[in-house]
Amino acid sequence: MFHNEGFRLLDRQECLRLLAKVPVGRVVYTRQALPAVLPVNFFLDTGSSVLLRTSAGSGLVRAIDGVVVAFEADDFDAATRSGWSVVVTGRATGVTDPAEYERLSRVGPRSWAIRRGEAFVRIESEMVTGRKITGTRGTD
Amino acid sequence: MFHNEGFRLLDRQECLRLLAKVPVGRVVYTRQALPAVLPVNFFLDTGSSVLLRTSAGSGLVRAIDGVVVAFEADDFDAATRSGWSVVVTGRATGVTDPAEYERLSRVGPRSWAIRRGEAFVRIESEMVTGRKITGTRGTD
Repeated sequence: MFHNEGFRLLDRQECLRLLAKVPVGRVVYTRQALPAVLPVNFFLDTGSSVLLRTSAGSGLVRAIDGVVVAFEADDFDAATRSGWSVVVTGRATGVTDPAEYERLSRVGPRSWAIRRGEAFVRIESEMVTGRKITGTRGTD
Repeated sequence: MFHNEGFRLLDRQECLRLLAKVPVGRVVYTRQALPAVLPVNFFLDTGSSVLLRTSAGSGLVRAIDGVVVAFEADDFDAATRSGWSVVVTGRATGVTDPAEYERLSRVGPRSWAIRRGEAFVRIESEMVTGRKITGTRGTD
């Protein structure tokens, strides 16, 4: 799907508004020369950059710090065969500034799985694309 | 999340069982030297390979034919802060054999958005990994 008459493209503002509605997205990068994808909790900071909440002890921060990554979030409804998908592509940067870390620790929802040693990675929203699926219910 | 004490790894059989439950996943590849990710309808064929249903007119088949890609599907529940994620990594191959195309057209659910010119891409499940998030409700 998502390549044909059944969808419409979303503008940047629509994309950011939808992104703010969901707690989990997927970061896309390269690991050991293979494509890799990992679900991660996130929130939007200062309106448009994506802040990932991950574990300081995982390899994710090291794998993507300084690298251009894609980040995808979506929400689909199987009953109506409709939904949306947004992709942010931009450079990822691990947050190292203590004041910034402190501020981010106080905003946004908490991670679902991390119990200690949280880390933040910022993805600049250099390119934001999205599409809405209008559904084809009744065709089969 | 998904990097710490709050999850457990799934074995291949559990992963395939969960994959069969959802109609949409996300294919991860490289487009113009950038990481790319696209939601797509899929189903499992002959037990373990992933069959993407996409549009013959899109660039996806051309972009991933013969290439190792990742494919991710998941299901999360924000209320219980739990869910699962499965990633299949393997070579993608566009289906060109007419008999095979005919067979695949008759199995699995239809695409949500494609109204004509369907194409199939098979991803061999060479590497299958998954994790289940047990949730951390009550920590915030």
